[in-house]
Amino acid sequence: MTSIWEPLYGRASRSLKPSPIREMLHLTRRPGVISFAGGMPDPAAFPVDAFREAANRILEEQGRDILQYGTTEGYPPLKAFLSDWTAPRMGRKLAEDELLITAGSTQVVDLLSWATIDPGDFVICEEATFLGSTGTMRNHGASFITVPCDGDGMKVEMLPALLEEAKAKGRKVKYIYTIPNFHNPLGCTMSLQRRRQLVQIARDWGIPILEDDPYGYIRFDGDHLPSLFSLDGSGIVIYAGSFSKILAPGTRVGWAGGDREIIRKMAVFKQAVDVCTSVVAQAEVYKYCELGFLDAFLPKIVDHYRKKRDDFETAMRRFLPLEEVSWVKPQGGYFYWLETRRISARALFDRAIGKKVAFVLGEPFFPNGGGEQAFRMCFTFASPEQTEEGMKRLGEAMQESLNP
Amino acid sequence: MTSIWEPLYGRASRSLKPSPIREMLHLTRRPGVISFAGGMPDPAAFPVDAFREAANRILEEQGRDILQYGTTEGYPPLKAFLSDWTAPRMGRKLAEDELLITAGSTQVVDLLSWATIDPGDFVICEEATFLGSTGTMRNHGASFITVPCDGDGMKVEMLPALLEEAKAKGRKVKYIYTIPNFHNPLGCTMSLQRRRQLVQIARDWGIPILEDDPYGYIRFDGDHLPSLFSLDGSGIVIYAGSFSKILAPGTRVGWAGGDREIIRKMAVFKQAVDVCTSVVAQAEVYKYCELGFLDAFLPKIVDHYRKKRDDFETAMRRFLPLEEVSWVKPQGGYFYWLETRRISARALFDRAIGKKVAFVLGEPFFPNGGGEQAFRMCFTFASPEQTEEGMKRLGEAMQESLNP
Repeated sequence: MTSIWEPLYGRASRSLKPSPIREMLHLTRRPGVISFAGGMPDPAAFPVDAFREAANRILEEQGRDILQYGTTEGYPPLKAFLSDWTAPRMGRKLAEDELLITAGSTQVVDLLSWATIDPGDFVICEEATFLGSTGTMRNHGASFITVPCDGDGMKVEMLPALLEEAKAKGRKVKYIYTIPNFHNPLGCTMSLQRRRQLVQIARDWGIPILEDDPYGYIRFDGDHLPSLFSLDGSGIVIYAGSFSKILAPGTRVGWAGGDREIIRKMAVFKQAVDVCTSVVAQAEVYKYCELGFLDAFLPKIVDHYRKKRDDFETAMRRFLPLEEVSWVKPQGGYFYWLETRRISARALFDRAIGKKVAFVLGEPFFPNGGGEQAFRMCFTFASPEQTEEGMKRLGEAMQESLNP
Repeated sequence: MTSIWEPLYGRASRSLKPSPIREMLHLTRRPGVISFAGGMPDPAAFPVDAFREAANRILEEQGRDILQYGTTEGYPPLKAFLSDWTAPRMGRKLAEDELLITAGSTQVVDLLSWATIDPGDFVICEEATFLGSTGTMRNHGASFITVPCDGDGMKVEMLPALLEEAKAKGRKVKYIYTIPNFHNPLGCTMSLQRRRQLVQIARDWGIPILEDDPYGYIRFDGDHLPSLFSLDGSGIVIYAGSFSKILAPGTRVGWAGGDREIIRKMAVFKQAVDVCTSVVAQAEVYKYCELGFLDAFLPKIVDHYRKKRDDFETAMRRFLPLEEVSWVKPQGGYFYWLETRRISARALFDRAIGKKVAFVLGEPFFPNGGGEQAFRMCFTFASPEQTEEGMKRLGEAMQESLNP
């Protein structure tokens, strides 16, 4: 039967690709499969009772208000809380019109892309980067200029030459997308020196930075580095934050902080995409924060994941062929990025799935190709027993890949 | 100071218009203003305690699951509930892959537009139609072909000629957007005969229908008419539903029902816009339904608004100059649409705001112009006392417009 839809599809549909991570869920959710694939929090780290108390309280106190339509810009008490709570990271308190509450930080990417991107425009990003974000940008018609990374994040010293080249080719660069802390998928963190350089280059060229920081508060070692936003002051940095990792992703509450002109533009686009973020969800998150639960539980969440990272590192050192694989130990976040010397990640994936252990291939994180000998593993989701057993299976799969 | 953003804005930004309703909130929220403007439910009709009980119960029973990321397609128990609950309206139970949970029905418009619309494409809609939807479509680059309406809804007999004309001009029509029940803003309901005709025309031309039905369950008089979806069977109708009016808009939970190919396409776009609808909000709505509250409260909500409509009708007949204004009494929904014989709606609006009573101008509901002598009033939000006092003021404003 011929599809009635085929002739009706637009440009975005014709090039649409499902998220490779979401699409592989049917493999990773098979019974007995140990998954290091999806970047999911450990449900054991969810503060369920505290959240329930918050939900109950806010519905008791403000039920009629939070069941009503909300302003597109966000639930005002939550914005006021975030203005205070994020001030250390942002370098100052954001004003009400510098903050927009969103349906997770994915929506920040969508709204900024609505504001700026026409098909054929370019976004600059790390050479491997979060495929969810590039998928969103690609739907808007973006192409990508990628910048290689090392343990200190994006090699920003390469940017001026890349920008000159783009200019020479008549390519319109609309923004620079970066994940400076505990990068997804690379695990690296951008050094302070590079942060300063990046902000300066952005200002010199008049090209804004989208600073995507969902993992920034999940730091295990060392001190927090200043956000790109805090190193600026000109309005060239838009910061994307999220409650997904510091509370729970099922809330779908995130935020954008930045220059009021672009925040306003994004809010007007938000009117058209969902009117406002679930007021019920925003208000429950707000009450959770206001009751002090965010500050009380966040250190516990960080401790919980630090131990998981350490267990993961131990298991990798124990079971993987160390001469064949390398990684940078992440200072925070959710991910290890493994690069293999000889093994093809795709062949390894097939062997690993055969042994019921899953990871995410490197390739889909490279918008312009690459990553054939790399893969991402999430250390937050599996239990300690699963981590040990899964790593054992992965080690066996690697050995078999070397000696087929 | 020059904006750093101006050179970066894309096509959609350059033609972006804020929602006139959202933007006039600063006028209608002034102290003492009686607002018939926004299409907001009466908070007194929100089942706050029942919703709180549902939230508490689901967080107690399923807290860890609903704080986690959910599938993009929607919370499975809610989908199962909707499949049953909507079966009378849909003519059959929808399968799991024929349903997509969305962030309100606005997101259904966004996702279908993502799938189909390229700049320059056309959507067919009622000559006055919900400006939120046309705003979303316009961001995607849609233009509009409008079909006049009467008390029986869209004059569908005009469609074949309009479609022929569009074809002759090389215009690509991507879908037909209609609000068959208790139209926003017109208040009219499409007759059964026209529903049958519309579905036949859509099938003959291979042009899908987006049936937007947020008000469909809020019927005061007479029997429910069959949905367009139920009159089809070929997959040409996509149905958009919402909990905003049958429960509360602050949840931001809606749904799309339709052919599995287009539902799948829309789900893949949804991955990129918000990953999934707030699982917390979906699960709380689900529990509210599952505990029987939806069926228990909906008749009370309908009774509540029937009385409000009747009070509104009484007040209009008492205070407005009946020879100067006409309307069709709505059988359900939220709105009266008033057409004036001589009075300019814009001049009346200024006078009315001066007297502290607000409505929404007709013009922004006409995507191709018109509506200068029409305006929309929402009867659900104001209290009985406010309705009487507001209508008195509006009557005075109309008299003054006639005799300035």
